[in-house]
Amino acid sequence: MTGSCNQCIPSMVLPMLLTVSLIFSIIWQRGLFLRKIMPSMEELVSLCRRRGFVFQSSELYGGLQGVYDYGPLGVELKNNLKQAWWRSLVYMRDDIEGLDSSVLTHKMTLRHSGHESTFTDPMVDCKECKCRMRADRLVDDKCDNCGSKNLTQPRNFNLMFKANFGPVEDEGSYVYLRPETAQGIFLNFGNVIDATSRKIPFGIAQIGKSFRNEVTTKNFIFRVREFEQMELEFFVKPGTDEQWHNFWVKERLDWWINQGLTTENIKLQPQENADLSHYSKATTDILYKFPQGFEEIEGVANRTDFDLGSHSKNQNDLNLFAKVMENRDSNTKFVEQGAESSFVPFAIEPSAGLDRGVLAVLADAYKKEALDNGQERIVLKLKPHLSPFKAAIVPLARNNDRIVSKAKDIAAALRKAMIGRIKYEDTGNIGKAYRRHDEIGTPVCITVDFDTFEGGQETVTVRDRDSMEQRRISIADLSDYVSSLALE
Amino acid sequence: MTGSCNQCIPSMVLPMLLTVSLIFSIIWQRGLFLRKIMPSMEELVSLCRRRGFVFQSSELYGGLQGVYDYGPLGVELKNNLKQAWWRSLVYMRDDIEGLDSSVLTHKMTLRHSGHESTFTDPMVDCKECKCRMRADRLVDDKCDNCGSKNLTQPRNFNLMFKANFGPVEDEGSYVYLRPETAQGIFLNFGNVIDATSRKIPFGIAQIGKSFRNEVTTKNFIFRVREFEQMELEFFVKPGTDEQWHNFWVKERLDWWINQGLTTENIKLQPQENADLSHYSKATTDILYKFPQGFEEIEGVANRTDFDLGSHSKNQNDLNLFAKVMENRDSNTKFVEQGAESSFVPFAIEPSAGLDRGVLAVLADAYKKEALDNGQERIVLKLKPHLSPFKAAIVPLARNNDRIVSKAKDIAAALRKAMIGRIKYEDTGNIGKAYRRHDEIGTPVCITVDFDTFEGGQETVTVRDRDSMEQRRISIADLSDYVSSLALE
Repeated sequence: MTGSCNQCIPSMVLPMLLTVSLIFSIIWQRGLFLRKIMPSMEELVSLCRRRGFVFQSSELYGGLQGVYDYGPLGVELKNNLKQAWWRSLVYMRDDIEGLDSSVLTHKMTLRHSGHESTFTDPMVDCKECKCRMRADRLVDDKCDNCGSKNLTQPRNFNLMFKANFGPVEDEGSYVYLRPETAQGIFLNFGNVIDATSRKIPFGIAQIGKSFRNEVTTKNFIFRVREFEQMELEFFVKPGTDEQWHNFWVKERLDWWINQGLTTENIKLQPQENADLSHYSKATTDILYKFPQGFEEIEGVANRTDFDLGSHSKNQNDLNLFAKVMENRDSNTKFVEQGAESSFVPFAIEPSAGLDRGVLAVLADAYKKEALDNGQERIVLKLKPHLSPFKAAIVPLARNNDRIVSKAKDIAAALRKAMIGRIKYEDTGNIGKAYRRHDEIGTPVCITVDFDTFEGGQETVTVRDRDSMEQRRISIADLSDYVSSLALE
Repeated sequence: MTGSCNQCIPSMVLPMLLTVSLIFSIIWQRGLFLRKIMPSMEELVSLCRRRGFVFQSSELYGGLQGVYDYGPLGVELKNNLKQAWWRSLVYMRDDIEGLDSSVLTHKMTLRHSGHESTFTDPMVDCKECKCRMRADRLVDDKCDNCGSKNLTQPRNFNLMFKANFGPVEDEGSYVYLRPETAQGIFLNFGNVIDATSRKIPFGIAQIGKSFRNEVTTKNFIFRVREFEQMELEFFVKPGTDEQWHNFWVKERLDWWINQGLTTENIKLQPQENADLSHYSKATTDILYKFPQGFEEIEGVANRTDFDLGSHSKNQNDLNLFAKVMENRDSNTKFVEQGAESSFVPFAIEPSAGLDRGVLAVLADAYKKEALDNGQERIVLKLKPHLSPFKAAIVPLARNNDRIVSKAKDIAAALRKAMIGRIKYEDTGNIGKAYRRHDEIGTPVCITVDFDTFEGGQETVTVRDRDSMEQRRISIADLSDYVSSLALE
């Protein structure tokens, strides 16, 4: 272009601009830009409520702050995520046992775990408006609510829920609701070894509810008072702990990516020493880019021998690495006999938040796409193994007995195949059925139409959620097709 | 024999006695008598602890009365029973939605459900030994502990656990731990209809923890303070309620029998009018013959419009069948528009105890059998879909690389088939492996031996838990074989 005349340049600008606009418009139409845009929290909350993933708990009595109910689709998504976790650890590996310990927890357990003394947040009261808030999150030392600086001194507020226990009502008769499932694992360490003859290294995995009386709850199901955890304690020989810690950080990161989280939305962050919990030698957080920014979905901690040591009697004999409180209440000593000497195992703990996981999976799967007809669709591009429905069976004509009866037969046959939930969908026209199932992440819609009975083999139309492409498939092949899809 | 001489009779007695003894001995050897004998509670508790089904919670701090932890095998059995329930209702039927509502429950919910005022047991104190017990279970009005008749007057004790909620510590800031999962279903009735466009009749199913501060706990995991329920609320039009009630009684009885409970150990018992709960028009209990006698594993109640009516505002407009407390707290009216008039749906509630179900299934499956070698075996004849392990893979020689490597390959292949938990078993000799897996209910042991590599196709020995018969099967057919077995 060197040496081209000055008049030429303006005359080239217009066609270039047009070309760029055309390319941009094509990309936009196909939703390629939109796919990169994270949904807002409002969009997620709206979808969750509208389609029955998550409801506010006790809503008709004004709601309970930081407590949620999972609706018909939410319970399936949550159960599918739980099962994927359980399968990957307890079923697919040969060195992990499962456990389901109680929510109600002995006060001695949480005394010796350190939770009674250290599981606190600093709290202040505003003397003007009586509002209560976390001291460590104040902006400019001003009340979040009214802006006053007339605040009380911070004091520690314990986050554990306490409940009366047994028929005797005195001060000593109480239990805690567990603030983490982990303690139930440590307490059963000896029981599990006795029952299974396991040797170090091995792990114990648990999924279950935990409860924390947060001073402030926020970001929908991200920070709540009742939540579910998926925790693994992997017990190793001291000295091999750092290697196992690295191993589990990588394993867990891979697992989240297998659940459909996009690599660029997820990152590892080793905690600073000052931020470490009282039990931890090192913790690496797995952060996900939520609508509100990068926040933790899982922490992988090296808890050393802190926990098994804390719950042991005669700790002076144990040569512990961790500094523990004296324990005169336990009747047990958690010691493993090594080749040369005995030791208290170190615990590597990948601890994931299930509700946060559900929110991350939803946020990453949520896409708005422009359609060729100028309209827009919302589509949840969930991995099929997480989808609430594995397939929807749609009769094209609801008043045609032959079509309806065949569609019902197909639904019944797929249900027998034990793939997961199958929806018989006759509540609207076919276009609406597709939109509805796009929005809730059903991988395929299977339509029985008039062509089904034409030709030698009976066939149906299978419409793919992501590509929106349709193809005909023989009914005889359907069960295998949906089964293998549902494992993806 | 008429007219036979007197000498003949004694000479015939001996051979007859011998024949009878022989027949008896054969029957005994084959365990046909023993199968009828119910295990004692002690035997069940011992098996549960030894093999890792159930442990006492917080045992190392002296235990929590009426609270248990499920170990590695217990969590699998419990999850399998849950999944069987969920599949039969939510997956296999077309008229039931799932839900997972919170444990923490708004006090207004349990005020209007009637639990604040009526969910109580009468309690007395012994003035001599200070023991506290249920007044309605006293024998001869004497203290259970010391036999004194010097007791206080009975007073009502509310069975709900209360916990502080939120950072403000005043008398009004509390929630209840739910005493039943059902209330979460009633509160979400409108949300579920909005999200799913369901019409009456349809149901909402839920599995989850409930909590009751029982005055006395007993019979292992039968009467406990923390337990899990499987509850369905099936909403119907008034007038069709009795018919649906009968339908669900039969369905639920069939389901329990499908879980392996023997017909003669299970019976239906309609409750007397005087025993009915405050919400019920009619309840039929499903009783199982536990070691302690026949007791309830499930109740199927006709709750009428009591619950949806109780949680509605403006109740005077609703023409309710049930007598309800006035509700000025709710912001909702649960009304369905029928063809002619509007109505509040009736709820038919099959409510099953999961822990009781686990105990019943274990009790029914537990058999002691005499073996041909004069020894005895304990075998858990669980339905394979409930078994903690679906198969054990046993290498016959642990020091033979070829055998070990093939056994590990088989285990890996079966795990990929997503059948459930597969055990690679190399912790003892083959006889011990069989005994161990008999006792925990593994349907088949698959042994890789020296014959595996003989002949054209690779084969293994498959040993059946119940018949103890062994047969050779091609490795290529193994996955299909175990998969179809695991569904039984």
